[in-house]
Amino acid sequence: MAHAIRFLSVDAILAAGEGHQGVPLGMAEIATALYARHLKFDPADPTWPDRDRVVLSNGHGSMLLYSLLHLTGHSHISLDALKRFRELGSPCAGHPEYEPAAGIETTTGPLGQGIANALGMAIAEASLNARFGDGLVDHRTWAFAGDGCLQEGVGQEVIQLAGHLRLGKLTVFWDDNAITDDGATELSISEDVAARFRVASWHVQEIDGHDIAAIDAAIAAAKVDPRPSLIACKTVIARGIPRLEGQRGGHSGKLFPEDRAEMAARLGWTGGSFAIPEPIAAAWRATAASGAQERAAWAKRLADASNAVRDEFERVHGGTLKAGWREAIHAFKQRAAQDGKAEFSIAASGEIAAALYEVLPEMMTACADLEAPTNHKRQLAAFKASDRAGRYLHCGVREHAMGALANGIAAHGGVIPLAVTYLPFSDYERPAMRMAALMGLPTLFVFSHDSIGIGKNGPTHQPVEIIASLRAMPNMLVLRPCDAAEAAEAWEIALLHRTGPISLVFARQSLPQLRRDGGPENRSARGAYVLAEAEGGARRVTLLSTGSEVQIALAARELLQRDGIPTAVVSMPCWSLFEEQGRAYRRDVLGEGCVRVAVEAAVKFGWERWIGEDGGFVGMSGFGASGPAEELYRHFGITPEAVAAQARERL
Amino acid sequence: MAHAIRFLSVDAILAAGEGHQGVPLGMAEIATALYARHLKFDPADPTWPDRDRVVLSNGHGSMLLYSLLHLTGHSHISLDALKRFRELGSPCAGHPEYEPAAGIETTTGPLGQGIANALGMAIAEASLNARFGDGLVDHRTWAFAGDGCLQEGVGQEVIQLAGHLRLGKLTVFWDDNAITDDGATELSISEDVAARFRVASWHVQEIDGHDIAAIDAAIAAAKVDPRPSLIACKTVIARGIPRLEGQRGGHSGKLFPEDRAEMAARLGWTGGSFAIPEPIAAAWRATAASGAQERAAWAKRLADASNAVRDEFERVHGGTLKAGWREAIHAFKQRAAQDGKAEFSIAASGEIAAALYEVLPEMMTACADLEAPTNHKRQLAAFKASDRAGRYLHCGVREHAMGALANGIAAHGGVIPLAVTYLPFSDYERPAMRMAALMGLPTLFVFSHDSIGIGKNGPTHQPVEIIASLRAMPNMLVLRPCDAAEAAEAWEIALLHRTGPISLVFARQSLPQLRRDGGPENRSARGAYVLAEAEGGARRVTLLSTGSEVQIALAARELLQRDGIPTAVVSMPCWSLFEEQGRAYRRDVLGEGCVRVAVEAAVKFGWERWIGEDGGFVGMSGFGASGPAEELYRHFGITPEAVAAQARERL
Repeated sequence: MAHAIRFLSVDAILAAGEGHQGVPLGMAEIATALYARHLKFDPADPTWPDRDRVVLSNGHGSMLLYSLLHLTGHSHISLDALKRFRELGSPCAGHPEYEPAAGIETTTGPLGQGIANALGMAIAEASLNARFGDGLVDHRTWAFAGDGCLQEGVGQEVIQLAGHLRLGKLTVFWDDNAITDDGATELSISEDVAARFRVASWHVQEIDGHDIAAIDAAIAAAKVDPRPSLIACKTVIARGIPRLEGQRGGHSGKLFPEDRAEMAARLGWTGGSFAIPEPIAAAWRATAASGAQERAAWAKRLADASNAVRDEFERVHGGTLKAGWREAIHAFKQRAAQDGKAEFSIAASGEIAAALYEVLPEMMTACADLEAPTNHKRQLAAFKASDRAGRYLHCGVREHAMGALANGIAAHGGVIPLAVTYLPFSDYERPAMRMAALMGLPTLFVFSHDSIGIGKNGPTHQPVEIIASLRAMPNMLVLRPCDAAEAAEAWEIALLHRTGPISLVFARQSLPQLRRDGGPENRSARGAYVLAEAEGGARRVTLLSTGSEVQIALAARELLQRDGIPTAVVSMPCWSLFEEQGRAYRRDVLGEGCVRVAVEAAVKFGWERWIGEDGGFVGMSGFGASGPAEELYRHFGITPEAVAAQARERL
Repeated sequence: MAHAIRFLSVDAILAAGEGHQGVPLGMAEIATALYARHLKFDPADPTWPDRDRVVLSNGHGSMLLYSLLHLTGHSHISLDALKRFRELGSPCAGHPEYEPAAGIETTTGPLGQGIANALGMAIAEASLNARFGDGLVDHRTWAFAGDGCLQEGVGQEVIQLAGHLRLGKLTVFWDDNAITDDGATELSISEDVAARFRVASWHVQEIDGHDIAAIDAAIAAAKVDPRPSLIACKTVIARGIPRLEGQRGGHSGKLFPEDRAEMAARLGWTGGSFAIPEPIAAAWRATAASGAQERAAWAKRLADASNAVRDEFERVHGGTLKAGWREAIHAFKQRAAQDGKAEFSIAASGEIAAALYEVLPEMMTACADLEAPTNHKRQLAAFKASDRAGRYLHCGVREHAMGALANGIAAHGGVIPLAVTYLPFSDYERPAMRMAALMGLPTLFVFSHDSIGIGKNGPTHQPVEIIASLRAMPNMLVLRPCDAAEAAEAWEIALLHRTGPISLVFARQSLPQLRRDGGPENRSARGAYVLAEAEGGARRVTLLSTGSEVQIALAARELLQRDGIPTAVVSMPCWSLFEEQGRAYRRDVLGEGCVRVAVEAAVKFGWERWIGEDGGFVGMSGFGASGPAEELYRHFGITPEAVAAQARERL
């Protein structure tokens, strides 16, 4: 059975002319033991909520996963798909791409993030198990990992965090083949990796990764140990191909038909290209039988559950929001508009989140050691080893793992993940944000500290380029609200957005309430809108702004109006939503033939899209500085006077 | 003496109204033992090349560093500067900002990167020691670190790598106060941190961080051990302030004058605000005496060295390039222009680097396990525990540590660091790239795999938004050459650029030689230039492009010229350099009144700057796909025909 993986993989790589044979050849026995004896899955329903999750963190070894999915009968991974490995349109892409219906639980390739996704899946399972009990939620998460995954910092963050959280249903198979792309691992590491896991309180077993019985026993032991398990599997890279076994070239060196022939001779394989001898194929198909039975039993348990439980289970797994969430947001918005206090900041976002936590028990918040300054814990209990019902995850100072585990939670389903930190630290998390965008996962990234407005902590803590760099990311919805009303609207947009991640970007400092309309209409949903129309004649100037600078635009408008210059202010909380609007709406908002000036306490990069080549811009041209916020705004010339001057210059 | 640190810190934080007292109060004894008994420094010459380096990785505790620099007599950190802690213009910024003349060796704040900088400094020392011997280079690197630094993935990468490289002159003081911003560290970690270091082959000592004699002894032991040292210092956060000692609020909770009064009473401190009793001030001043002597002895050794050695030492530390480097680049360029073979790619960049390695022994290359596919090792030997003369650093799959240690090398001086990986993995390295830009360090970031042109490895490996996100970063020079001639020019620009980092972005795939002028003129130095002028009349169309798409622009020009439409092609290897040119040059290059169309296999974000609001753009609107590169270009419509069509539409 393991050889079936080997030959399918080699045949596909030969057909593609490139690929990474090291992993599928080296981990074939590990995968076989897992799928044949332990994995809970049913190809007839690849998205069955109580299935085990499998993550190939060493994603370059994608043919391992595709071979397994094909052999076990996942219909999306047909023989034709395998034959078109790495070709345009094949589900068998160079690296696995998230497609639950095909059995691909997450996209992997950039190393280390896969095991962080797996950690998130295990967290989601534990959380749902606490809510719904063993009868409906009791599955495991299995991750395949290579040396690279454990060298990457994010991998190390996962080791610390998973051990700390004692997630016993998480098992990592380490492909200990002592080879990376550069050659021997001893070029870049000399630590005892298994010992490192032990320090982090993992259950560690060290075995021969080609000994099916040993792997089987190790998995059985992993299943009963309350700690997360590392199964350190001593393997031979590219096992089976004499020329490449244990060699650096085994990783992804070019394969030739002769290699296949020699492997066939050595392993006594009689199947032709892409052909699996029937007894072996039958044995693989049979691996799904127990899972099918388990699924049937599970379905019965779900059917037997009370209506309330079943409805709730199906609701959270279907991604439907509970009635009342919108009302909670609207109530906040109305209150904010009425109160009109200068109080909006990240703290207000925390208030909205708190209202949502009450209505939506599936919301779970992860934060990188910034509980107090981000205010998104509120009344939530901590999720910890001793309390899986907790919904606030203290991630420690580990932003990358936080983002990637949030993606894992989103990919798992049934739980809505928030990942909270300061915007300047989003750089640490960015690799995970990119993967969320690529996968189309609705991970909710929440940020405080969005500009020089944070003041005295200085330029390391002051984003200037980061908003632009997030706006540049495809499929990432970036929202930067200007007050509590827009904040409420941003949250509403975020919860309704299911096709990709959202970045909610908030100021730390208090901002005045600018909007006094507290009704249910979501004005931010069109991305940009006229917040204050020009008065006293046809509009001559349009001032564009976002977030904390909208108040500056409004003050500049006062200056210009006072001089008899009809000036409008456009608030643009979300560029990409505005871009999706019809041309007529965009033209009306931007104002045809008007002088346009933008103000944002960030770099100009990208603003030409809205102000044109000759438009005015008031913002940052470099990094910030340490000092009181008001002084910084003056120092960098981000003032109503500067905005008005730029407009006048152009009139 | 330790209390002097405490009171200066508290006085400054009280004056600023905010700050982080936890570190300076908790690490006062550690710092005192280090500075008074061991640190090699001379405030009379803060940039003395053979000084010890000190990095405050837990940068929020900046008052620890400022107090030390003031007390030891560093003139930049005057009493007035301390009194203006966190105010605009004070060298005592919220977080330490790189200023060697002030004794601030690196910017810190985003956690974990400081110890990675320190690792780089230790690498630079070891490398220079191998070149120049103990007489001229023999100093140590000391880093202060908190729990956050060791939770961050980059910190864990440093632990692995430093232990592996056996950098015995690197010592980390861990402020083991069991408190982070969220509260007790047990909220997010339960591993034995000292044991984790031992696994990575560090020399580990666990001591009472308030016992000066114990710290002194531990430092002495660290100095003779051949391994990097962790001195795990059990400390009490905010030690000295009864209300905050050992408490969560000790980290950065607001201080009041009463706190100072209580601390003074408890510690028997008689000094007033910002006043250090003279005997203590004198003791602090005296700490510099031994360093001054050592510097004098060192200066004599340098003076006594042969002219060749002295000149070379001063050359590399002065950042002067050796005669011949330019000729090496020009020779490559000329050869490439003459040969005209379709061979340009990352491999050609490796060839240029190889030519430079020969001329410039101070060049050192770090790479994240991609030696073969990036081709920048060439003839270099590996830098390793057993060979400090090696100039190629196998970083393992640790991009973040790679970038941050490269910054440390650049900050150290005497060595020119390259950091090499694939562009899609720059996200992992980005936090370090931002710090290089912020510090103005000339770190050379080299990237391969710049677009969908990499083909079958799929979208995880295909940057589409990353070039834009780097262009958005202030002070980051981004160069994307179109052929070997531009590659040579890009390298020339990079080596001459001393005020900030450079990103050299190369394709993996082979590109044709477009330029046949192989002369020494650096056409890329103006950022953009007319590669092919319009023919047959006044220019009507300008096609703008970079890198691998310039050939597409040239082909589109052929199509348009064939229809009698005079069309120019502008190659834009570096936007920011072009932006610095005079308006007239920019107008001439862009073509006044011309239809403009840009083509780049990346997102449009930012291109409006050059094409205007209504210009054409041919590129990517989302992430890539797995498939053969040529097919992907067709699939995404990045073709000469599409470019020509966009131009025609607008004519």
